[in-house]
Amino acid sequence: MVGLEWDAARLPRLRRVGVVGTGLIGTSIGLALSARGVEVLLRDVDEAQVALAEKMGAGRPWAGERVDHAVVATPLPSVAVQVRALARSGLADTISDAGSVKVRPLVEGVQLGCDLTTWCPAHPIAGRERHGAVSARADLFAERVWAVCPVPHTGSAAVHATVALAFACGATPVRTTPQRHDAAMASVSHVPQIVASALAGALVGLPERDVPFVGQGFRDTTRLADSDAELWSGIIEGNRGPIAERVRSLGAQLTALADVLDTGSGDEVTAAVSRLMRGGQAGRALLPRKPGAPAQSWGWVGVVLDDRPGQLAALVGFISQWQINIEDVGPFEHSLDAPAGIVELAVDPTAADELVDRLTLNGWTAYRRS
Amino acid sequence: MVGLEWDAARLPRLRRVGVVGTGLIGTSIGLALSARGVEVLLRDVDEAQVALAEKMGAGRPWAGERVDHAVVATPLPSVAVQVRALARSGLADTISDAGSVKVRPLVEGVQLGCDLTTWCPAHPIAGRERHGAVSARADLFAERVWAVCPVPHTGSAAVHATVALAFACGATPVRTTPQRHDAAMASVSHVPQIVASALAGALVGLPERDVPFVGQGFRDTTRLADSDAELWSGIIEGNRGPIAERVRSLGAQLTALADVLDTGSGDEVTAAVSRLMRGGQAGRALLPRKPGAPAQSWGWVGVVLDDRPGQLAALVGFISQWQINIEDVGPFEHSLDAPAGIVELAVDPTAADELVDRLTLNGWTAYRRS
Repeated sequence: MVGLEWDAARLPRLRRVGVVGTGLIGTSIGLALSARGVEVLLRDVDEAQVALAEKMGAGRPWAGERVDHAVVATPLPSVAVQVRALARSGLADTISDAGSVKVRPLVEGVQLGCDLTTWCPAHPIAGRERHGAVSARADLFAERVWAVCPVPHTGSAAVHATVALAFACGATPVRTTPQRHDAAMASVSHVPQIVASALAGALVGLPERDVPFVGQGFRDTTRLADSDAELWSGIIEGNRGPIAERVRSLGAQLTALADVLDTGSGDEVTAAVSRLMRGGQAGRALLPRKPGAPAQSWGWVGVVLDDRPGQLAALVGFISQWQINIEDVGPFEHSLDAPAGIVELAVDPTAADELVDRLTLNGWTAYRRS
Repeated sequence: MVGLEWDAARLPRLRRVGVVGTGLIGTSIGLALSARGVEVLLRDVDEAQVALAEKMGAGRPWAGERVDHAVVATPLPSVAVQVRALARSGLADTISDAGSVKVRPLVEGVQLGCDLTTWCPAHPIAGRERHGAVSARADLFAERVWAVCPVPHTGSAAVHATVALAFACGATPVRTTPQRHDAAMASVSHVPQIVASALAGALVGLPERDVPFVGQGFRDTTRLADSDAELWSGIIEGNRGPIAERVRSLGAQLTALADVLDTGSGDEVTAAVSRLMRGGQAGRALLPRKPGAPAQSWGWVGVVLDDRPGQLAALVGFISQWQINIEDVGPFEHSLDAPAGIVELAVDPTAADELVDRLTLNGWTAYRRS
């Protein structure tokens, strides 16, 4: 998947890129391109944001120079208008946008009479719960996916420039359609945003004396609730159809679970919860270990290491004798004060049990992680 | 709140502690106590778990010695039975448990004829989505809250030993009642667990080609879905009443939102989403910045720093002249490759605007973070 569908020889070299909208995404694009030596020109209705982005090293104000490619990174409701304005200015050969929803701005673009041949709809799938140029980072797109969503009208020059932009920002371009993009984002981004806000909002009803009982799980599950309300209202309204379907289904699922919790036998409750949780585990197992990489399930083996230097090297040396390839190494779990730690190794699932046996025979404490 | 309600002079010194159940929590307690020089004796129906816990340095197998205090850290459905067995053995003067639900095991304990004077129900609020001794850490409880939930029958010796245990593990003991504990945990732990699993489960229906579009937000929101299904089925069944109420309410909230998304005007949709998100932000604002510390909202000011050494020191030196106290410093956001970074400073909210003005006058680029 990783970029193989693009013909590298046809990708243009971007020397000068214009960025319209210097918020989190636009300024991060500017930082990433500037770090690669691309000349970046910045424009925003808020001149203070442009000044901050320039100060951070994201580029310089766009005074009307021609550019090889321009990217629109404004809030969703203004994407189509900005694309049209750019196309009419004649300053950019090709245009892409960075909106979180793809069908709506495309429909608006058609209604506005935008030239669809020079505009490639796209979406760098990266973000933070913070916004504005102040939160931008040059590495925001590193190892992230950049959805490239052309329609039949889209010219190949626009597609190739957009792919080149994604690569230049350190991302992996992935081709899809606007419809498929929006359906997927409803499930994996927009509905989670809604749910995180609903969960966090429930805290307002909690007696203040009980707030200390909030643990790390709640913090992680609700982190998205810090996102910008205005920005997200626009995104959710812009993709309301696919989101409504999934929100309704989740609401019905929770109501059905509440019925079981209220009236089911103990066994019925544990069965319903187990089923729900095994579904969640199955979903999590589909996640690629690195964004952009295909899903792969390794067999994970935990090994207890003493606190002496060179233990990990000794372990890896041992394993290499057995023709078992170590595919990945998890973070070394070392407790403060504890005399030992655990390292986790990913191997071919069919080799994991053998590895545990061999290590145990050789005096290591090793366990298969389920 | 932080421990002030306990009379330190009355807390016993724990020299030898028994741990029943050497999973994640029990083994982590053993590691934390052992690191402090407390003698720890371990017991579990699974002898391999005890052997692993011993190998990790969490203590040694419990052969029937007397202990100052024993803690039951078994799965929820067996807590009351284990407490009764321990009390009848006469090996421990006082007993506490570490169950995630407090009313249910107490009711079971009453039905089993447990001695309620020597048993203090408690719950260290720390965990991981991974389980078993293999995942234990000596610092699992550091800066976490340990709920101490006595009932009128509970003797003060049991309460004080439990508080001493919490302190010895590096946690902050917080007193509450079993009922209040369970209601709070339903909102901040059990319902988020259910929702994380439901969201992650929705991924199973996603076409495989769309999986790369999953971003970091989805990963964080669904992290809890990796939790152990059997363990959690027991917890949720054990607290089904308070959970049912909250799950039903969330289900109704989502169904109502789906109705607006399906049939509302654009303005109605953005208004509904904004309302939901502002509620979520208000809930997040209640979170203590450090677990166990009271909620406090500072004014946050972001300042752009050049990449030269000593910039942060120069900034702090500047601010110290103005009698503005820096209450906290956020992580220094430094992009790879970017020539500048942002540091965030927390100050009294009433002083934040003044700080931005003064810094700007002195040539710094400073912004108030909303």
